[in-house]
Amino acid sequence: MTQTLPAPRFDVLCIGNAIVDVLGRVEDDFIVREGLVKGEMRLVDAGRSAEIYGHLGQVVRMSGGSAGNTAAGVGSLGGTVCYIGKVADDDLGRAYAHDLGHLGIRFATPPLSGGAPTAVCIVLITPDGERTMNTYLGACQSLTTADVEADADAIAGAAITYLEGYLWDPPEAKQAFRRAAEIAHASGRQVAITLSDSFCVDRHRAEFLSLIRTGTVDIVFANEHELKALYETGDIDAAVAALKEDCTIAAVTLGAGGSLALTRDETFHVRAAPVNQVTDLTGAGDLYASGFLYGLARGMPLADCAAIGGLCAAEVITQIGPRPMRSLADLVRQAGYPA
Amino acid sequence: MTQTLPAPRFDVLCIGNAIVDVLGRVEDDFIVREGLVKGEMRLVDAGRSAEIYGHLGQVVRMSGGSAGNTAAGVGSLGGTVCYIGKVADDDLGRAYAHDLGHLGIRFATPPLSGGAPTAVCIVLITPDGERTMNTYLGACQSLTTADVEADADAIAGAAITYLEGYLWDPPEAKQAFRRAAEIAHASGRQVAITLSDSFCVDRHRAEFLSLIRTGTVDIVFANEHELKALYETGDIDAAVAALKEDCTIAAVTLGAGGSLALTRDETFHVRAAPVNQVTDLTGAGDLYASGFLYGLARGMPLADCAAIGGLCAAEVITQIGPRPMRSLADLVRQAGYPA
Repeated sequence: MTQTLPAPRFDVLCIGNAIVDVLGRVEDDFIVREGLVKGEMRLVDAGRSAEIYGHLGQVVRMSGGSAGNTAAGVGSLGGTVCYIGKVADDDLGRAYAHDLGHLGIRFATPPLSGGAPTAVCIVLITPDGERTMNTYLGACQSLTTADVEADADAIAGAAITYLEGYLWDPPEAKQAFRRAAEIAHASGRQVAITLSDSFCVDRHRAEFLSLIRTGTVDIVFANEHELKALYETGDIDAAVAALKEDCTIAAVTLGAGGSLALTRDETFHVRAAPVNQVTDLTGAGDLYASGFLYGLARGMPLADCAAIGGLCAAEVITQIGPRPMRSLADLVRQAGYPA
Repeated sequence: MTQTLPAPRFDVLCIGNAIVDVLGRVEDDFIVREGLVKGEMRLVDAGRSAEIYGHLGQVVRMSGGSAGNTAAGVGSLGGTVCYIGKVADDDLGRAYAHDLGHLGIRFATPPLSGGAPTAVCIVLITPDGERTMNTYLGACQSLTTADVEADADAIAGAAITYLEGYLWDPPEAKQAFRRAAEIAHASGRQVAITLSDSFCVDRHRAEFLSLIRTGTVDIVFANEHELKALYETGDIDAAVAALKEDCTIAAVTLGAGGSLALTRDETFHVRAAPVNQVTDLTGAGDLYASGFLYGLARGMPLADCAAIGGLCAAEVITQIGPRPMRSLADLVRQAGYPA
């Protein structure tokens, strides 16, 4: 960033698949019976989505979508946020807009009319708190470059544009992702990506590496599994070393082991915030990114960014669903950080 | 009940307002600003419902409705259950049916087509875990005697027919309530009522007392506030004494003080099950009724019925929303009761 840039209008602009989560508790044998892999996000069609739902017990519904969760988290921290994502013009889509709108988040992407319904992810929560996800992309398939162009001013005015790796799944969205990165960089802003899921990395490894190595993205978020998948190694230290070479800033989450904030020259290890009881891991990585990005956009030291990320992640895993029900600003202030 | 009755096909048949809950956390000043009374259930029209929702932050959606919650609880305990209530032929209505159906609960009431939408209750959860409710009755206004008549065989075959006091709010439902009690008694079965809410008791005191004193209902569920409102006294002991005179069996919940199981001649006080942290009191009374009714239908001693009710209530208040996300049968078995 240069000194002459105008002050950003938004701390963070998030682009992602706009998805409503349907969350239910299941035993481990449910995962086996349905032929799923624990912890994985799998894409399903409308029929398979309905089938899994039919086998599921009591559910709760809550807005989700990885980058949407991150946006909500930054908003809850008091940050200024814009979100780009495609819902349908239906009840779930309106509910999705409500859940961003109350935080003052700009969400101006026009909803899809007369096409697929708002996307739904069936989230199966096992007794260990792990979540296994089945996503029907619905209206998300219709996110296009035009939706990004329509918010070009917002992207140009956001300190960081944050993109989810899952956007590589709907084919049109991939172009939208690249266009957003172009607009951000043309305005001297930073671009961040989350690798999203180790299976997503397996599907798109070469392109993800290229995005990082060509500088299409400046900041990378990954968990341990995603990072090992990216560099096709079982050695986390080797993967971390490779990542440090490849990008400007990275954040690697290590579950109960806390997280690493990385630059080419520095490594900060931040311990995990204490959690009494893990209820549901859904949204842990997304909310870590909220805290980290908020700190980064506000110019805080990297170790503080990681610590705030850890606080936000610790909060969301004590509840069901990926959107924090309590004010993250209060939480972070109580821990002694500015919010 | 006589010796010659056929064995019941259902442990419990529940009739109530079929409502989907929209639950959000708020600070105490939100309640004040909206001109509400903490802990109260208030009826609102569609416009006011939308207005409160517009002021509310992040929400979760979950099926609710007092008797529906009780039905789900009995189902989760492994009991056989039938539910009668009116949803609309819309997404929320279908979600409501799913959440009962997966427990094997019979729910055959035809949904309303081309009329009001499925009812919604906006539940405001304050930091103390108390909930304040704003109900838009929608399709519930269309529950009629015909819906009850259509399930007459199920009522005749249910050990206990359980009715919520809230049914006194939609005018048509009141007749449906009376008809259900007639059918149950004509088959030698028992009829139970919950007083639902102290403000509901204020609206319908004379009729509730008449239902109890004329034997239209045999079993009464009430909390401390509802019971004091019923007998217009601040003295809980006097209210309990009056209730013992007026009905065959009663259960009085006392919050953290546990509960009382009452007959004319006996009083059993059962301590509350321990709870680490109260998250949301929504559904506490409804799930107490689940446990109590399940025990009663299975012929357990009254003190055990109250203890099982207490276990179910303690479970539901550790989570957001009124429907248990874990198996109550497992919970009750672990505590040493048959389920």
